[in-house]
Order: sequence, then C-alpha cells, then structure tokens
Amino acid sequence: MGLVVQKFGGSSVKDAECLRRVAGIITNTYKAGNNVIVVVSAQGDTTDDLIEKAKEISKNPSKREMDMLLTTGEQISASLLAMTIAEMGYPAISLTGWQAGMMTNSTYSNSRIKKINPERILAELDKKNIVIVTGFQGINKYDDMTTLGRGGSDTSAVALAAACHADLCEIYTDVDGVYTTDPRIAPNAKKLDEISYDEMLELASLGANVLHNRSVELAKKYNVNLCVRSSITGAEGTIVKEVTTVESMMVRGIAKDNDVARISICHIEDTPGKAFRIFSLLAKHNINVDIILQSIGRENTKDISFTVNEGKLQEALDIIENNKDVIGYGELSYTTEVSKVSIVGAGMVTNPGVAAKMFEALYDASINIHMIATSEIKVSVLIDEGLENLAVRAIQDKFELV
Amino acid sequence: MGLVVQKFGGSSVKDAECLRRVAGIITNTYKAGNNVIVVVSAQGDTTDDLIEKAKEISKNPSKREMDMLLTTGEQISASLLAMTIAEMGYPAISLTGWQAGMMTNSTYSNSRIKKINPERILAELDKKNIVIVTGFQGINKYDDMTTLGRGGSDTSAVALAAACHADLCEIYTDVDGVYTTDPRIAPNAKKLDEISYDEMLELASLGANVLHNRSVELAKKYNVNLCVRSSITGAEGTIVKEVTTVESMMVRGIAKDNDVARISICHIEDTPGKAFRIFSLLAKHNINVDIILQSIGRENTKDISFTVNEGKLQEALDIIENNKDVIGYGELSYTTEVSKVSIVGAGMVTNPGVAAKMFEALYDASINIHMIATSEIKVSVLIDEGLENLAVRAIQDKFELV
Repeated sequence: MGLVVQKFGGSSVKDAECLRRVAGIITNTYKAGNNVIVVVSAQGDTTDDLIEKAKEISKNPSKREMDMLLTTGEQISASLLAMTIAEMGYPAISLTGWQAGMMTNSTYSNSRIKKINPERILAELDKKNIVIVTGFQGINKYDDMTTLGRGGSDTSAVALAAACHADLCEIYTDVDGVYTTDPRIAPNAKKLDEISYDEMLELASLGANVLHNRSVELAKKYNVNLCVRSSITGAEGTIVKEVTTVESMMVRGIAKDNDVARISICHIEDTPGKAFRIFSLLAKHNINVDIILQSIGRENTKDISFTVNEGKLQEALDIIENNKDVIGYGELSYTTEVSKVSIVGAGMVTNPGVAAKMFEALYDASINIHMIATSEIKVSVLIDEGLENLAVRAIQDKFELV
Repeated sequence: MGLVVQKFGGSSVKDAECLRRVAGIITNTYKAGNNVIVVVSAQGDTTDDLIEKAKEISKNPSKREMDMLLTTGEQISASLLAMTIAEMGYPAISLTGWQAGMMTNSTYSNSRIKKINPERILAELDKKNIVIVTGFQGINKYDDMTTLGRGGSDTSAVALAAACHADLCEIYTDVDGVYTTDPRIAPNAKKLDEISYDEMLELASLGANVLHNRSVELAKKYNVNLCVRSSITGAEGTIVKEVTTVESMMVRGIAKDNDVARISICHIEDTPGKAFRIFSLLAKHNINVDIILQSIGRENTKDISFTVNEGKLQEALDIIENNKDVIGYGELSYTTEVSKVSIVGAGMVTNPGVAAKMFEALYDASINIHMIATSEIKVSVLIDEGLENLAVRAIQDKFELV
C-alpha cells in the first residue's frame, strides 16, 4: 500500500497486445491498493520514424521544432495506454509533460528537469485515477516543449518518484534485472539482486543500457527506491539503493561501450594550463570527455589523448581545430576503431589486485590495452574495436562472476 | 501589407514535397511584406491512422483520451512545416492549440472555441516569425486538450483571423474555389468569384465540402475576409464576404448530400406538443434535424418524417424508442437510401419561380421528390439515393449556371 511509479519503455508498449500486458501489470499494482503513476516512452520505432520525417526536410532541423515533433510520440502511447486501462475497467488519465508539471531548462533535445509541480498528478491520484505521464519530455519557461534526450523516460520516472515521494520506482524493461554483464555476450553472467547507486551509475555510464545514468544520479540524490525488472517475465528484478546489504563482490559488473572515439592532440607545448584550456573548451560545448591520458612527447612537448562519445567526435574535432592557435599543438588525430570495457564494484578500492586481475584476463586473451582509467569503483580500458565481447567473456570467467 | 491567415488541409501537407510547395506559398506572402499566421491540419491519413490505433484497443474509447491522441497529428505537421520554412531561410515557429491560446469549452471531440488569447502569437509575429498554429484543437479550462471535430481547422483559421484582426483569411484546398456545383459531377459547373456568407453557409451545411460550416458562421459573425483557393494552381479563388458586389444570379450553387437518413414516426396521437417533444429530445442529444415533414395520418393521428445525418441515425432511433411512452406513437421506420439535393442563392427569396424551375428540372429527368424544404435562400429536396448526380446535372443545365 503506497505510491508506486512504474516506467515502461518503447518496446513494452509497441502495439495493442503489449499495451494490454503492461496494463495488466499496472492494474495489478492498483488492485493491491497502491496509487500508481505510470511513465511511458513512445511506441516502438515511433521516435525514429519521426526523426526520419524531419531528416527528409532538413539535415539540421531546429532543436526547438524537433522537440515539438518528438513529444508527440509519448503523447500517443500515453493516451493509448489510458484507453487500454479504461477498457479493463479501471480509471486512468494521461498527462503530457507540461500537464504533469515537468519544468525543464531550455536546452532543447537535451533538457534537464529543474522542478516538478505535481499538483495535477496529485489531484488525479486523489480522484483514484491511474495517472499516465509522458516520459522524456517537459516544458521550459517559454511554455515550449522540451525533451530530455534519448533514454530520458527513466529520468522522468525517477524525478516523478522523488517529487511525489513515491515508495518505489519500478523501471520495466525487456531484461529481468541488472546482470554482471550482458548475458548475450557471456551466457554465464549473473543477475544481481541488489546494486548500489554508485555501482549502477558506473555501469550505466559505461554503456550497460539498462538504466539512463541521469536517472541513477537523481535516484541517488533523492534516495529513490529503484527497481529494474522485466515487463514480460514478472521476475523479481534488481533493487538499486544506497548500500547493498549482501556481502560485496569485488567486481559487480562488466560493461562495454563501442560508441567511443579516441582523439589525440600531439606536440602540445609543455607549459601549464594547456590541458585546462582543451577540456574547458570541450565542456563549454557540453562534450563529455572520458578516459584521459597525457604522455611526454619529445622536445618539450606533450601528447594528450582522450575519449569522447562517437556522436560528439566531429564537433570535438571542429572545436579543437578552430582553437588551434589558442591551444598550440602540432598534430590532431583520431580513431573510432576502439571500444571501452570496464569493471565496476564498490569493493575495488580496498582491493588493489582487482585491476591487475583484469589486465591478466585481457593478456590471457591476447588483447592489447591502449588506455587505462580508474576510479574508486571502476577500471576502464580502451581496446581495439571488435575484441570487446571476447574481453567481457575473459573478465567474466577470470572473476568467476557466476 | 498586413496580416494574413493561411490554412492548409491534410492533403496539402501530406509529405515533404507537399510541405515544400506550401512553404513556397507562405514565404511568398511573407516576402511581400505581410505578417503570416498559418493553420495546418494533420498530414494526409494521420488522423484516420490514429483512430485505427484506438479502435484496436477499445470500441468506445474515452473522448478525452481520443483528443489527447488526435491532437498529436497537427503537432507533427506544424513542426515539420516550421522546419521546411526554416530550411528555405525564413524564420518560423510552430505552436500547439494551447500555446496559441485557443480556449475551448469541454465537449471533447466536438469542442467550440470560447476565446482566443493571442498574446503568444502576436509576440512571435513581433519577432518577425511566421507562426504555424495547429488547427482543429484547443485547450479547455481543465488544461486538457480538446478537438473541434472533423474539419475544425477551417474554424481555427477563421477564429484566429478574427482574434488577431487579420486582413485576410485564405483557406487553401485542392480545388481552386467554390463552384456552382461539384465539377466532377457537372463538368460545366462554374467557379464563383464571390459568394456571400449566407450562401456559403447554406452550401457548406448542404454537403459542399469546401468549407466547414462553423468556420463560415464565425467569418460572418466577425466579418472576416475569407478566400478559398487552390494550394496547387495558385488561381484567384473565391472570396466569401458579406454582400457580393456582382449582380446576383438567382441560383448560386447546387449541393448534394448522400450522408442523410430519413426517419418516419407514424400514428402519433394528434395532440399539441408532440413535435416539440420529439425535436427537443433530439436537440438535447446534439442531433441536428434537417428537413421536417408532418402529414395527417388516419384516425386522429399524424405522421412526422425528418432527416438526420446518417452517422446519427442509430442514436436518434434509440432516443425515440426509449421515449416511446412519452412521445406516444404507433410505428417507427427509417431509410438511408435517400439523398438531398439543394439549390442556394440569395436572389431566391424575391423570385418565386425558382423552386418551381428546380422541380421542373427534376420532373424532366424523371426524378421523384420525397420531401421538400425551403428557406429564404435555399430549396432542398429528398430523392432516391443514386439519382443525386443526375439531379445535380439536370438542375445545373436548367439554370444554365455556366
């Protein structure tokens, strides 16, 4: 008995049959005496289809108009889900992002939620309605529609759970929880019953596509009880919370990310402030930099290499080239033929042998390591693209995460 | 130089190529120094496709949720049109019904515009933006999306023209104006350069699908300069205004309507108040009754026949049957195998021979007349379904509307 937020992704609501299955989960929760807020993504390929329509018109459409276009996707799935629930005899109402009070900043296509005014939602819950809210979207101070970026529906759900003080936020997906690594790559991967926010955050950031990382950040910040579970099997799923109660395995999960490019800036003059200048320029343009490696070059110069998301590669290269005079460097090179493989686990920091064990696993599999980055709870390596699945299996076996 | 409202229907914006053609018309108007507000319908079959999706879920979906679903159609076309115009190098912004301040009452699926708050539109015009507004939709006092009913985009356009004091409201369609009758039926039909609001209103109500009749009512009420023209040929079109300046032809147009059913209630007790009771019951359920014929029956009873829209037939029959005791009648019968053919013209009322001439045309064509109704500016007859095109041609030839 309480308030539950349930989020369903695009594949879970892609047609009438899927909508009925999802409506079954929702109404079961409602019948058990809970208030229910549902967050939905756009159906199946709707968002891609809309993007395709825009691309026929313009190579570089206005982001404000793109958000106007894309927000229709969730509005369609939300209203259809409300109809499906009503057809089963339960009261339901759909609300768009702005009706649900999802206030965002004005960065079209990649907005952040600033505040939620949940009055309308709470009023509908008071009327015993199941409230269906469109995920992924909000409204800015100009009364214009905004979107939170791909995968933003997870963030919508967690933010609503925080704003409405929900007892639980369930993220329904097509897998039945968080695994030590992708079971399609390493069949002996193990489902975790629990994982901490920090560990999940590292896994999410590292390309394990279970939860959007901003949603995990938010859950940690507001201490939201988060649960990842399957909309198909109904299995128990994985609980994400502050501290896991089970004895911590050293390595909790293995993630891979192919969507990575390495940029190398060579022959940079060896004076202070160079690295600062490069990375502040990139930050100003919202480009996230991941692994950074600085090496001594020759004749009083140094080389700086780092990785960015592959989609941001061209923009990053343009920024660096346009600021060649300010930075002062000899040569700029890049490659997209790299992948990142990472291990994550809260126990790592107190166990210095973990990184070495990972490197040994890669050595045994004859995989060359190009770059290494470590944090308190993760170790990431950059390797040749195409070897990442082999690497994941080698690490899974080495750590016996079974 | 002034403010022009331009409305484009679904077939005019159905794909990228059509959007570019429409954007050409809009930017030409803008380049000529005008402020431009554009009203768009949903692309091609979008609305029907969305209705189909809802029908898969529920035979009788909530009207509130249907409006939530259907309003996405215009949001898609409006944003795509804004992108198309921007791609051509002109500033454009799309606004939904609620962003454009279209306040309606709460009759979901068939709302009426109560008021327009045009502040946002005027602010965007001040910024020299071409403003694209989603037709067919608005928002009610609960902040819920509403729709104006099929064809409501015409009404949106005229209402915006009135609220913003536009100099001209252009309704773009796939024909190049208002004709004396459908040129596909009578090839010698003539395009009218001008027509009065009242004449247009009769033609619109009578099934000439050029303009939504509520839009003509509004245009008359607020004296909006209305023009119907082709989005393809660019021809001059037909101007709809208070009084036509050309010498009035007696008959301005011929309309037909197949979407008609006749209901007959027989053996009604011949006491006062019976007709009132029947038609007030139907009015309470928003069922419009058109031609009414009352005849003496036998043994102190009478028969009342009338026509309703075919889509409302079942509801009307149900209402009458459920109130059999109150009304008191012997027999209820109906047919859908009838069509209505009408002639319209402001000159008619002062020229008593017009109706007779119409009947003569039908007699010459051996068409039997079942019911007749007249108003100051029209004569309608009910005939067997299937003969309507023959009737239209016979009348067109008799009046020499060439």
